Parts: sequence; C-alpha cells; structure tokens
Amino acid sequence: MSRDLKLSELARRLDAELVGDGERTVSGAAPIETAGPEEVSFLARRKYLQYLPTTRAAAVIVGRDLGEVEPPRGLALLWVDDAHLALADTLSWLYPEEEPEPGVAPTATLGPGVEIGEDVSIGHYVAIGGGVKLGDRVRIGPHCSVGDRSQIGAETELRSQVALYPDTIVGERCILHSGARIGVDGYGYVFTDGGHRKIPQVGRCVIEDDVEIGANSCIDRGSVGETRIGAGSKIDNLVHVAHNVRIGRNCIIVAQVGIAGSTEIGNGVALAGQVGIIGHLSIGDGARVAAQAGVTQDIPAGETWFGHPARPHTRVMRANAAFLKLPELIQRVRRIEKQLGPVGADDD
Amino acid sequence: MSRDLKLSELARRLDAELVGDGERTVSGAAPIETAGPEEVSFLARRKYLQYLPTTRAAAVIVGRDLGEVEPPRGLALLWVDDAHLALADTLSWLYPEEEPEPGVAPTATLGPGVEIGEDVSIGHYVAIGGGVKLGDRVRIGPHCSVGDRSQIGAETELRSQVALYPDTIVGERCILHSGARIGVDGYGYVFTDGGHRKIPQVGRCVIEDDVEIGANSCIDRGSVGETRIGAGSKIDNLVHVAHNVRIGRNCIIVAQVGIAGSTEIGNGVALAGQVGIIGHLSIGDGARVAAQAGVTQDIPAGETWFGHPARPHTRVMRANAAFLKLPELIQRVRRIEKQLGPVGADDD
Amino acid sequence: MSRDLKLSELARRLDAELVGDGERTVSGAAPIETAGPEEVSFLARRKYLQYLPTTRAAAVIVGRDLGEVEPPRGLALLWVDDAHLALADTLSWLYPEEEPEPGVAPTATLGPGVEIGEDVSIGHYVAIGGGVKLGDRVRIGPHCSVGDRSQIGAETELRSQVALYPDTIVGERCILHSGARIGVDGYGYVFTDGGHRKIPQVGRCVIEDDVEIGANSCIDRGSVGETRIGAGSKIDNLVHVAHNVRIGRNCIIVAQVGIAGSTEIGNGVALAGQVGIIGHLSIGDGARVAAQAGVTQDIPAGETWFGHPARPHTRVMRANAAFLKLPELIQRVRRIEKQLGPVGADDD
Repeated sequence: MSRDLKLSELARRLDAELVGDGERTVSGAAPIETAGPEEVSFLARRKYLQYLPTTRAAAVIVGRDLGEVEPPRGLALLWVDDAHLALADTLSWLYPEEEPEPGVAPTATLGPGVEIGEDVSIGHYVAIGGGVKLGDRVRIGPHCSVGDRSQIGAETELRSQVALYPDTIVGERCILHSGARIGVDGYGYVFTDGGHRKIPQVGRCVIEDDVEIGANSCIDRGSVGETRIGAGSKIDNLVHVAHNVRIGRNCIIVAQVGIAGSTEIGNGVALAGQVGIIGHLSIGDGARVAAQAGVTQDIPAGETWFGHPARPHTRVMRANAAFLKLPELIQRVRRIEKQLGPVGADDD
Repeated sequence: MSRDLKLSELARRLDAELVGDGERTVSGAAPIETAGPEEVSFLARRKYLQYLPTTRAAAVIVGRDLGEVEPPRGLALLWVDDAHLALADTLSWLYPEEEPEPGVAPTATLGPGVEIGEDVSIGHYVAIGGGVKLGDRVRIGPHCSVGDRSQIGAETELRSQVALYPDTIVGERCILHSGARIGVDGYGYVFTDGGHRKIPQVGRCVIEDDVEIGANSCIDRGSVGETRIGAGSKIDNLVHVAHNVRIGRNCIIVAQVGIAGSTEIGNGVALAGQVGIIGHLSIGDGARVAAQAGVTQDIPAGETWFGHPARPHTRVMRANAAFLKLPELIQRVRRIEKQLGPVGADDD
Repeated sequence: MSRDLKLSELARRLDAELVGDGERTVSGAAPIETAGPEEVSFLARRKYLQYLPTTRAAAVIVGRDLGEVEPPRGLALLWVDDAHLALADTLSWLYPEEEPEPGVAPTATLGPGVEIGEDVSIGHYVAIGGGVKLGDRVRIGPHCSVGDRSQIGAETELRSQVALYPDTIVGERCILHSGARIGVDGYGYVFTDGGHRKIPQVGRCVIEDDVEIGANSCIDRGSVGETRIGAGSKIDNLVHVAHNVRIGRNCIIVAQVGIAGSTEIGNGVALAGQVGIIGHLSIGDGARVAAQAGVTQDIPAGETWFGHPARPHTRVMRANAAFLKLPELIQRVRRIEKQLGPVGADDD
C-alpha cells in the first residue's frame, strides 16, 4: 500500500533542509514514539520533543518554529517551514490513494434516466434513483442510496452506506463518509387538534464543492428553500445541521456540533466539538466558538466565544476562574457581615 | 413535482383574507428573501418583515398577529390566523407527496412466514426477517433491515437504511428516517472477575402510532420489559434513548438529546437540542427543558428547566446573569475587606 | 424464544436462598411493576421496593443488601449477594441467544483472497472486500461492508449495516452494533492557499478483544499510527472517538461522548453520557467523569471530575451549590457597601 522514497528525494520535494543520510529510504510514516527504522515521523508540537532521543524512526520532519533540537546519532532531520503541510505532502507521496476500478457493480441498480459521466465507479448494492446525474470520476461505495433527481459533481466520493434524499445537490471533489444522511426532512411541526402535524419539507439540500462530511452526520433539507454547505467547509462525524441552515465557505465544524434551523454561519467560522447553536441566529465571518459552548445570540465577525450561554472568550474565562472561588467568597462575605453586625434590609 | 394553484383558490382553502390579484397562479413556495414571481411565501416572525419591501414573491401568507404591514405594489397578501398551519396546508397542496409503486423489489429478501398487507412497497436490497408482519400501505426504502418477528403498522414509512432489531413493534403512520436504529441492545453490564459482563438485553422496543424518528437516532430495547415511545411524539436526528425509557404522548425531542436508562418522560414534554437526562428520573407532563441542559433530578409537571445541573428557569436565568459579574464582585469584596481592615477568622 | 425454569433449579444455579414454592415454573423475566404470574423479577434498588406488595410476579430475586422486605403471600423470594450478576445469569438461562445458521447468504459478495473460518455466518447483501480474514464463528448481519484487508477475530458479531473502513482490525468476541463506523478518516486539515487541504489519513483502527460498540458510533482510524480501543471496553451509542485516541482496558464510555484526537484514556476509566474531552490529553486509570463534563486538562488516576470546564468533583459540587445563591450574594454585598458608605477605589 505504501511506496519507497529516498530521504534526499523527500527533502527535495519538500524543499526541506536535510541533516543526515540522504541515501536512506523510507516506506511509511508513523508517530514519533512508535516509528520503526524504515519510517519517517513528524514533530509539530514541543510536547512530543520528549520522544526524540529514543525514536527508532529513520528521519523526522521538524518545523523550524520548534527551535533547536538535538537528534540522536543516526536520526536524519528534515527542517521545514510548516510541519503540517509537509506531513500532508509526504503522506500523499508515501500512500497514494487507492483508485477503485471504474464500472458499475453487477449488484447495483439504476433508476430510469440516470446520467453517468466518465470513469464512474459504483459499488455493490448501490441504489440510484431515477433521473440522477453523476459527474466524471464519481465514486460511490457499497450500500449507498441516491434519491431521485439528485446530482453529484465530478470526482466526489461517497463512502459506504451514505444516503442522499431526493433532489439533493452535491458539488465536485466532495467526500461523504459512511452513514452520512443528506437532505433529510427537517424537524417542523405545527401543533393543532391536540397533536403535532408535520409541515411538509419540500426544500432541498445543496453541498458545494470541496466539502467533506463525516460519518453519521445529518444535514436536513430546507423546509422551503434550501440548506446549503459552502465550498471548502469540513464537517466532522455525528454533526447535525437543521433545515434552512446556511454554512459559508471554508468553515470547520467539529464532531457532534448541532446547528438549529435557519441559522446562518459566515465564512471561515470554526465551531469546536459539541457546540450547540439555536435557530435563526447569525454567526459572523471568522468567528470561533469553543467546545461545548451553547450559542443563544448572534456572534459578531472575528470574535471567539465560550461557555453556556456563550459569551466573548475573555469575559467567560475570567468568570470561570472566579466560579470555583465562589464558596470561599460566600465565606468572606459572611465574615464581613459578622464584623459589621446587623446589616439593614435592602431598601432600594 | 409541484402543482399550480390560483391565489383565489388558495385563499378559499385557507379561509384567508386575500388582498391582491386572485387570478395570479403560484406553482411553488419559497422563503421570502429568495422567492420568485411564481412562488408564494410566508411571514410568521417580525424579524423577516425587512424582506417584505423587496420580495419578488407573487404572494405572502401573513399571520394576523403580525399587525399592519405595507406590501409593495403588486404583492398579494393572504391574511390568516395561524401562519404555520397555513404553511403546512399550502405545502401539502403545492407539493403532493410522491407515492412509490406498490410491490416488492426483485432485489429484496423476505424470511419465512412474513405477512404483508395491501399495497405495501419494499425497496431495493431490503432484508425482512422471519415472521415479520407489515400492515397495509407500509413503505420500506432501500437497504432497510427488519429483524425477525417485528411488526410495522399500516401506512408507516421507513426511509433508507433503517434497522429494526428483532421483536420491534412500530405503530401506524410513523416515519423512521435514514439510519434510525430501533430496538438496539441497551448498555448494561455487571462488573465481575475483573471485567464487564454483558447483561442480556431481552426486552423489546415499542414505537406507538404517529411517531417520527430522525436520521441516525438510536432507540434501545428494554433490558427486560420494554422501551416505549408514545403516540404522536416526534424525535429529531441523532437522539439517544436508552433501555427501558418511557416517553409519553406528543413529546418534542430535538436533535442530539440523550436520555439514560429507565427515565420516564410524561406527555407533551419538550426537550430542546443536546439536552441530557440521567437515568431513573421522572419528567412531568408538559415540562420543558432548555437546550444543552443536564437534568439530574425529577422535574415537576409544567415547569421549564435550564442549565447544568438543570434547575427552574428563572433561578438559572438570574444566576447566569450574575455569573459574568463574578470577577467584579470579587473586586468589590476585596475593597470592603481593605476598608474594614483585618477581618476575624470565621468561627462558626 | 424463552425457556422454562423451576424456581428450585433457578435457586440452585444462582446459589440463592429460596423462600417460597420451589416447584413453580417461570418462563421469562420482567420489571417488577409489569411482571406476570409466569415471570421472575428483580429488586436491586430500594426505589422499586414500592412495587413489591402488588407485583404479580412468580418470584423476585433480591439483593441481600436491601435488608428486610415483606413479600406478599404467594410471592417467592430468591436472596442473592449480587442482584445484577444474578440478573445476568438468569436472563442467559431463560433467553438463550439465537444462533444464525452458519453459511454465506447467496446475496453476499466476497472480494478476492477472503479467508473465512469455521461456522461463519454472513447475512444478506454483505460486501466483504479483498484480502479480508474472518475468524471462526464470526457473524455478520445484513448490509455490512467490510473494507479491504480488514480482520475480524473469532466469535465477533457485526449487527446490520456496520461499516469497517479498509485495514481495520477487530478482536475476538466483540459486538459491533448497527450503523457503527470503524476506521473512518480522521478530521485533519492544513490551511493553505486560502483553503483547508486534507491530510491523508493513512493509519488504522484496532479494536481489541471483548469490546462492544454501540449503534451509530464512529471510531476514526489513525492519521498515521493507530486508534486503539482496549480489551473489554464498552462503548455506547452515538459516541465519537477521533484519530489516534487510545482507550485502555475495561473502560465504560456512555452514549454521545466525544473524544478529540490523540487523547489517551487509561484503564478502567468511566465517561458518563455526553462528556467531551479535547485533544492531546491524558486521563488516568480509573478516573471518572460526570455526565456532560467538558474536559480541558489531564485528569490524574482515580479522580472523579465534573462540570464545564471539568474540575475535581467536590470543588465543582460546592461551586454549583453556591452558583444559584449568586444573585442573593450580590444583594448582600450591595447592602454592606451601603452601610459602609463610599468605599475607596481599589488601588492594588
């Protein structure tokens, strides 16, 4: 599954400064604490410097921002400006992606009027509905179901067991992971005659280009109109995006986040794990929300918010620090009251 | 996919007061900010009144509670008592539901002794276990698996990739969305001999009539006895309901809620997104719990609770408001102590 | 589905003290409030003692730690040291597990070079990739997809619609519930040229022996290296485990927990429902984290933590208790300030 690469060649491709034996060959990558003598490793955080003296790796790629390090004898170093970028490049060279054979599995079914581009791969037991359009080099893994009239752009990949509800639009170069549910009915009811009557969910869901959606995440369709995930946004596992939410470009939405209906997320927003956002809000461009925060009001562009209910970062950090001193503070107030004797009733 | 409707006919059906040209025809519905000249839109919140002057919609349905509005020239208004109810009605007329052809897909498999009602539709690659009973007009989407001896009531719909564990009972007119898992083994172990031994989960799961369950939600079976979701309750995406939980009638359970084992939820309870409830509690009829709250004690009927740990709404709101003033409060107490000089040790 | 058992025989097997008619036969188990005259029930919590006078059960298994109880006439009691262990044993005798017939369903597909042990059962529409190895008595339910080169140990069971990504290793006697996703790409990007570039996720995911993973839970593969779930650990529904996380042996991970990348969880750790843990942390052996806590720093072995951000249990409990008194505390400080008159500006 992996390819061999000489360290001198790796250094050349990375534009890295190589200190050590360029003739040595690596055939894989591994974490610094477990790498073997034919593997290259990475150092991007000072926390992991402790493993440098004892690593068995052939070479370590090090970010220049880590400052001086003292490698053990025989360990090659490759100094780079951006260790994470070098990691991405190195992994793509050492582990070229497996391309499935183009073709439609004999166990797959296609509805009437399906249009299929060039070199498309459709796996076992895939059910493609009527009128679906698949762009060139689309890859669909086993057990996916693609609802009627959906469209999937070129080079997009659906892993196993993905479900697209009817009329869903997915752009180019997207990756949808196993169990992702796209275009699900939104959660909308009107209470009448003693029960909850379903409001038909007749909108659609649009996933723009270069979006990745994690395993078992759920993106609802619009009630009317649409739900839209902007180009380049990346969504982790088990995320919930409700009807008529609009997420901008290049957002980072970490695992188990939930976004309620009609909320608008700007461009370049980062939502950490388990964040919840109520409906009909507006989150400005470049805003950041810390893990588990509960957002109940609009967030201006560029701000970092925190806590439950979420507020600007520094206010919450100070209040959190004070929180654990609260019992002691109550004691201090009690002592003051004792010293002062009877304090008159508050008469404002 | 959508039908045409004259505004005069729409007004008649809605019992709405029409102001504008009744001869105009609409063929779809859309949000007020994106609607085109052949679409009808809706105004139920004052927040969206800002879009009224510039909307391109043919007509807007407006709730009478919004008071006076000034429509632009040529825009028809339909005044109604309940805009959400009018929305539900209008959408059902404009977008009649697609009915799949009755019949069993040639790729589906049925176990021994399966009983199938009239006009049932079973999609591609569906696996129906032995002894299963399906009521009239049941619709089962692609890739569903229905465990042995399960029963599904008339007119219930399973979307794609739903799994019913064996012996699950689902009522009539239910909708189970893609990836819902019903009757899963509960999470029960006894620690013995240095390990966790599984307690067999031999109970069952009962979903009563008119229940909707969102995508990728998981409802455990009873350990012994049963887990039960009451008639008319609506469950959103990615919800977890543990073994032996009982949920009453007409409850609203929003996305990513988790309910631990044996807790009883009354009728008409509303749990907002990401709420967690520990086990063996009782939540009274009509109680409401705000988003992300963590419930650790019983909630009396009709109360609204909030926060973590959850407490009655007003107490938490006041404490939350005070929370961010905590650093300043500590400063104030420090100033008082300074002014008073040495304060004696607390000797209670 | 269930077997008959005489109470005298049940008592003998449980090593229980039987008070009542040993000749009576039970054929099932049920909760004490719903059990019928042919069923045995259980009492492990004092809370449920209230149902004892009116239960219709034939017999109740009671933990000796509950002290004296007064059973109604005709109700047999079986006194045991550990009611939960007795429950596990009794259920396994009354409800013997259903074993599927060994064999490969005609609708399943196997890739090239698949190795299959003895008495393996493979269900409908299962897609097994190339080079996969399945141990003896492995059971794979309908619609599972097993990626290339994956290995599954003896007696492990995959329920329906489980997905293993390529190169996943699953140990012996594991249970993977419906919709579990194992070995998913981790969530790793590097920001470059105005977009998020995917870091190839080339590591693997290893599930050791005797692990149970709940429905719709997602375990990512390593970015490089591996993600590992230790032997005997039990994971509930809808849990997210990110890339390069290491979970030790015999851990308890309750529903909807999320663990971010590279965090290490020791042995015997218990994480309650909806807990979130940020990345690159270390949680010591035997640590316990309360429901919904947000862990942002290392937790020493054996400690119980609580709250958001999580801190040691007693500190948070005291601060939580003080929290709701905060508005009143502000009032008290205001009264003191009034009594003291003008307080000088803080001049530290």
